[in-house]
Amino acid sequence: MIQTELKPLLTSISDFDLKTYLTTEKELVEKALDESLPLGKPEKIYEAMRYSLLAGGKRLRPILCLATAQLLGEKKIIAMPTACALEMIHTMSLIHDDLPAMDNDDYRRGRLTNHKVYGEDIAILAGDGLLAYAFEYVAENTKNISAERIVKVLAILGKAVGAEGLVGGQVMDLDCEGKSDVTAETLTFIHRRKTGALLEACVSCGAVLAGASSDDLTRLSIYAQNIGLAFQIIDDILDVTATSEELGKTAGKDISAQKATYPKLWGIETSQAKAEELVKDAIEQLVVYGEKALPLQAIAQYIVQRKN
Amino acid sequence: MIQTELKPLLTSISDFDLKTYLTTEKELVEKALDESLPLGKPEKIYEAMRYSLLAGGKRLRPILCLATAQLLGEKKIIAMPTACALEMIHTMSLIHDDLPAMDNDDYRRGRLTNHKVYGEDIAILAGDGLLAYAFEYVAENTKNISAERIVKVLAILGKAVGAEGLVGGQVMDLDCEGKSDVTAETLTFIHRRKTGALLEACVSCGAVLAGASSDDLTRLSIYAQNIGLAFQIIDDILDVTATSEELGKTAGKDISAQKATYPKLWGIETSQAKAEELVKDAIEQLVVYGEKALPLQAIAQYIVQRKN
Repeated sequence: MIQTELKPLLTSISDFDLKTYLTTEKELVEKALDESLPLGKPEKIYEAMRYSLLAGGKRLRPILCLATAQLLGEKKIIAMPTACALEMIHTMSLIHDDLPAMDNDDYRRGRLTNHKVYGEDIAILAGDGLLAYAFEYVAENTKNISAERIVKVLAILGKAVGAEGLVGGQVMDLDCEGKSDVTAETLTFIHRRKTGALLEACVSCGAVLAGASSDDLTRLSIYAQNIGLAFQIIDDILDVTATSEELGKTAGKDISAQKATYPKLWGIETSQAKAEELVKDAIEQLVVYGEKALPLQAIAQYIVQRKN
Repeated sequence: MIQTELKPLLTSISDFDLKTYLTTEKELVEKALDESLPLGKPEKIYEAMRYSLLAGGKRLRPILCLATAQLLGEKKIIAMPTACALEMIHTMSLIHDDLPAMDNDDYRRGRLTNHKVYGEDIAILAGDGLLAYAFEYVAENTKNISAERIVKVLAILGKAVGAEGLVGGQVMDLDCEGKSDVTAETLTFIHRRKTGALLEACVSCGAVLAGASSDDLTRLSIYAQNIGLAFQIIDDILDVTATSEELGKTAGKDISAQKATYPKLWGIETSQAKAEELVKDAIEQLVVYGEKALPLQAIAQYIVQRKN
């Protein structure tokens, strides 16, 4: 499947020390997240917000945002408030998705879900608080960037969460639960919104902050859409093939919830091949940036090779 | 209680045709709200968002925002996207507050609450969608205003919703339910956040959009804080004295939920006097603007005289 002319690039990507890169970036992000939300009054709500925001995870979204700003020649520090906001938004969506009225999940990232610890009322409010704070945090803390760009970033963030993004994807997902006739088209509609929209926002926000051209934005959007869909396909595959311990969340959940998934529609092998094809296209989009694109390309590669 | 020098002003306020003013402004706002959120896919979520956003109500928050921009010499149309966003945020807070895990209310503005019609899952997501869209809408639709001011407005909106605002107030409120020893200080902490923060944001956003000076902002903040608290005191009083039909929501709910209220702490008469005192101070803050302040002053007056 891999074309000959891509081979040297793929070798460079394999040589890129992604593990060290991700570890260093994750540490930076963890520190920034911890500082972004100090305790206040009433303490309970800050504790609930911090419980989920600081629960670990790969921090892929903030890292994508920082890496994109850097790819386009900006210092990554200028994108840090937005990177934190992206993780706040992601965390909000996890807290609300886990609620009994939604996916009703007890564990997330190997720990009890927010509502299992703080109760449903506080979990709903912690999500609301994180969502609102994401916008406030970008608006108040982004430095050395023109207000025009900040307004654009805030618009992108809003769109990624709303009915055209996360929320719309989750509604469609809930709607399809237990249905046996979900098409690949519908499934892709769901995931383009539920996972893809926010991943695309990570990259677009980083790009806008760094003053991207419209060509940059097009390339980076395709990159993000592809890795978003590939990420979801692999997620579906891992739900079938990995253990709960490996995942840090309940495995086999899609089957027990009778969810439509790619492995169900296409089988595991075809799903894996499709994910690899998407990632290859994503990598090719960024060839024009040369070596500077290696972190983003290596992240794309990692998505199809990850085990959790 | 009313001082002699305020008498002529109070006469002007009484002569101001507030009823016509509010009717005209409400019509403008209703039209703008209807246009702000056209149906999209998946339809169910847009319907759920529109169900609550277009459920009527006084539209006091958007009207306050428009009136403030106008008071400071701006065309009110420039504040309309922000005015709509404030109502989206208010609506989100009502949808989430009404959920079974929170206040568990079946009726709101004389109609079934969002989750009674669409289910809890969709109601949570409709709230999330409205909250995110509020920010997106301001960022994308505010015209002829500098990006610097738009960023400030978005920061104010975020703060008004988060743990320092609505969310923090609701957490404290839930915490105090059924407690017999809630002090006036705690009650005021709750209401400054639960009602006051957003009302203050309405006025501050209108002011920032119109390029307010820091003196303007101080005066208008005091005005808003006072009418916010007065509004809540009167709400508490009406919960005791009005019928469900008059209110368009369940009356006597505070008593049955054993909520701390001002009438409970101070008695109805003292509560009413305190609300009137707050409103008088609010009116005085705006004397410096002369006749242009009449709409805001008449709104303040209306808050203590309203019957629902």
